[in-house]
Amino acid sequence: MNQPTHPDNLLAPGDAAAARDVSAALDTTGRTVPHNWQLARIVDELHGARRDWRSAHSRQRETGSRDLPSRDALEQVMEQLCGALFPMRLGPADLREESENFFVGHNLDSALNTLYAQVRLALRHVARSTHGGVVPDQGEVDRHATEIVSQFALGLPAMRRLLDTDVMAAYNGDPAARSVDEVLLCYPGVSAVIHHRVAHALYRLGAPLVARVVSELSHSATGIDIHPGAQIGAGFFIDHGTGVVIGETAIIGERVRLYQMVTLGAKRFPKTVTGDLEKGLPRHPIVEDDVVIYSGATILGRVVIGQGSTIGGNVWLTRDVAPGSVVTQGTLKSNCPDDGSDVL
Amino acid sequence: MNQPTHPDNLLAPGDAAAARDVSAALDTTGRTVPHNWQLARIVDELHGARRDWRSAHSRQRETGSRDLPSRDALEQVMEQLCGALFPMRLGPADLREESENFFVGHNLDSALNTLYAQVRLALRHVARSTHGGVVPDQGEVDRHATEIVSQFALGLPAMRRLLDTDVMAAYNGDPAARSVDEVLLCYPGVSAVIHHRVAHALYRLGAPLVARVVSELSHSATGIDIHPGAQIGAGFFIDHGTGVVIGETAIIGERVRLYQMVTLGAKRFPKTVTGDLEKGLPRHPIVEDDVVIYSGATILGRVVIGQGSTIGGNVWLTRDVAPGSVVTQGTLKSNCPDDGSDVL
Amino acid sequence: MNQPTHPDNLLAPGDAAAARDVSAALDTTGRTVPHNWQLARIVDELHGARRDWRSAHSRQRETGSRDLPSRDALEQVMEQLCGALFPMRLGPADLREESENFFVGHNLDSALNTLYAQVRLALRHVARSTHGGVVPDQGEVDRHATEIVSQFALGLPAMRRLLDTDVMAAYNGDPAARSVDEVLLCYPGVSAVIHHRVAHALYRLGAPLVARVVSELSHSATGIDIHPGAQIGAGFFIDHGTGVVIGETAIIGERVRLYQMVTLGAKRFPKTVTGDLEKGLPRHPIVEDDVVIYSGATILGRVVIGQGSTIGGNVWLTRDVAPGSVVTQGTLKSNCPDDGSDVL
Repeated sequence: MNQPTHPDNLLAPGDAAAARDVSAALDTTGRTVPHNWQLARIVDELHGARRDWRSAHSRQRETGSRDLPSRDALEQVMEQLCGALFPMRLGPADLREESENFFVGHNLDSALNTLYAQVRLALRHVARSTHGGVVPDQGEVDRHATEIVSQFALGLPAMRRLLDTDVMAAYNGDPAARSVDEVLLCYPGVSAVIHHRVAHALYRLGAPLVARVVSELSHSATGIDIHPGAQIGAGFFIDHGTGVVIGETAIIGERVRLYQMVTLGAKRFPKTVTGDLEKGLPRHPIVEDDVVIYSGATILGRVVIGQGSTIGGNVWLTRDVAPGSVVTQGTLKSNCPDDGSDVL
Repeated sequence: MNQPTHPDNLLAPGDAAAARDVSAALDTTGRTVPHNWQLARIVDELHGARRDWRSAHSRQRETGSRDLPSRDALEQVMEQLCGALFPMRLGPADLREESENFFVGHNLDSALNTLYAQVRLALRHVARSTHGGVVPDQGEVDRHATEIVSQFALGLPAMRRLLDTDVMAAYNGDPAARSVDEVLLCYPGVSAVIHHRVAHALYRLGAPLVARVVSELSHSATGIDIHPGAQIGAGFFIDHGTGVVIGETAIIGERVRLYQMVTLGAKRFPKTVTGDLEKGLPRHPIVEDDVVIYSGATILGRVVIGQGSTIGGNVWLTRDVAPGSVVTQGTLKSNCPDDGSDVL
Repeated sequence: MNQPTHPDNLLAPGDAAAARDVSAALDTTGRTVPHNWQLARIVDELHGARRDWRSAHSRQRETGSRDLPSRDALEQVMEQLCGALFPMRLGPADLREESENFFVGHNLDSALNTLYAQVRLALRHVARSTHGGVVPDQGEVDRHATEIVSQFALGLPAMRRLLDTDVMAAYNGDPAARSVDEVLLCYPGVSAVIHHRVAHALYRLGAPLVARVVSELSHSATGIDIHPGAQIGAGFFIDHGTGVVIGETAIIGERVRLYQMVTLGAKRFPKTVTGDLEKGLPRHPIVEDDVVIYSGATILGRVVIGQGSTIGGNVWLTRDVAPGSVVTQGTLKSNCPDDGSDVL
């Protein structure tokens, strides 16, 4: 076989010798003296690696500060938004109903101002990337960020009403659920849908990078990976959820229920004439209203799962399914090829 | 196809215009002035959404504070309990063995008092939900919370002995494990079983909501989703673990070993005459002693996996298995239907 | 069936009565008085459990402090290392390019000193475990820790160049990726490979326990479980990633791409003559250059996946695959056994 090259020996022999010199910098009693990690050399070599990368990728010298959103800042925004959307259940423990509106207003103000700063950073990042490292019109960036956050904020009451349908879907869809409050407090699928609806609004309003950070915060906490671009109707519920993947161009109808490890993915990635991947093409499934998809099912490509269908566990599906179908492993002839091939 | 309705256009045209007015609130140099997010309007509309939800769900006006346990508080409880159960390995870095008991006593006192406060909140929540929004007898709630936490505390030494069997099972079951300490410090499956044994004790003692928060803390950190109701015998080990789901009424014997992405789930959810899901029915598998279930296997329904059986990877199983069986994908005829159906 | 014993009744009847006595310690108005959780008794019984465990496992009385690395300390090290490797993208939000080197140098100094303390703890732990509870030569431990951290530090520039190939692989391999910066900031697969390359360097330099903690930090955050021992070539990309498991002795070539829920695992665990598991044997797959493995595929044992092969989703593979093969569920005859067995 063609044994692949491995980068396991990152150190040249000379480096190892140098390291040993350092380790000799102990006094004779064996107690450590302040370490000399050869920082100057390492810092210089790291600088060289960055310089080479920037030159290879035509990155102009960046004179300003880092124009990228921050995970920590957006994590705080999401915590505050959750409290503003569901104050008595996701808000602070000592909140009383008579002071709800004060809490919501104050919390929202803080969340929106932080969100504005993050959206502004992301827009600056895009402006610089497309204008050779300079932001041509900071005022335009600020106006755009303000418009995005304003529209986002005005959409929050409708988002809350939509999320109420998701919460009820979770409660009604799981025999282990004891109360609506348990569902909001505990269910990762509910947390994931809150994050998704926020991320999707930001994605549509023109802040896809901020949206992606929000969705990855949820992915990390829940194991549920929903791309901000996915369009998802009311009454959506994911049970258990770990391993679920929903792609950027997926469209999901109302009252759809998924279980853990369901993939709504792409089948192939067309390339442009220059050999790059085509970005943004519709390539993920359309799932119509009232569909249930059980754990481990994989549905790939721009196929349509007809209204009211049930897709069984572990099913591998790459074709359209008529409305009202019940698809299980047993009904899929492709599990039984007649071609006699025997790779395994 | 019946294209589902999507909630993507949350804003009415008037809203967008209003947002633009706000974004115009910049001075002519393009610098931002303090934002006006139309907070009063949004807070009012969010209030309306809450009012509608409460009226639709017959929630009485809640005059007290939020009676729901807190994830953050219970995360702290779990950290302290882990330190009290395994002080030299999960306790603080500077702990010395001669002061172990002082640390354990102090830590446990703090953990139990915080746990008491959380259990009390959960019991208040149940009392109010079942008595039209009022807590009829706060003294009874306090007594009940005290009894639950007392019994839980008295069970901790036996729980530690039980967890020792789980730790040894992890060490003995994984050829990559180098020491028992590595297993306790690093293995997500060991962290998951500590959380589960705590959650299960709380579930049995009458604090299912607190138990569920504890189990979801572990689910989020490990990707292992064990419902607090599941009964699990000594010497239990889950390797890797991401994607494991164990349902509320599952019963697992001694010395059972699972791998990642194993589901012990329900097959169907019977409904009551009123059309609601039946809650609490036995609906998950019984796994007898000394069973091994490899990655990706899915076992659904109240079936019995006989003692000493081995269930191969990716197997889909909905029937009883006799003791000592070895079940692999190849032995499952149902993968080869003769019905000629060709949905795919 | 042989119903397994369950540890659900941890309390003897007498304990429950004792607990009720405690719960009676309320004054007549129903207000709580300071709780008596019977701490002295519980602390004593927990002590007894630890004593029994230590005696059963021949643990000498430990007189020093806890010699185990800390997850929190290593989480901080990883955050600082990420900032030092990619200052303008994973560093602090207010970093400016002209001060990059100062930030990198300062950050690295802090990271390496903390890492040194953790490596030293881990080496002490090993030294004590193998010398009956005492550290025979603290000077030797310190020298060894210094050498490990020095060599690790000198390898960082090469590691950064290697990680650049991984970042580009992520950007080029996902049609949803909009910029290289998005990939570094958001993609769990990129975070996992940064953690893995750090963990693998520490593993090879002789700090396997520290390495394992680093890899489990990543496993918890991303759902991607890569053992620090796995050897992985340049240009590696895992998309989505939740549920991926890569075993200790796996060897992966260059430009390999994996999707969520792929397992590169062991098939069986040979035992020594004494009945213990053999530790350290090559038992995981070798994946050659330019292989793509789609979601849910499971490859077990020391098999070779030939260069340029494509392994389809959900495939279960335990044999060698020739270079350039395309293996899908449909080409695997073993899904269609003729043996008529019908366990299910």
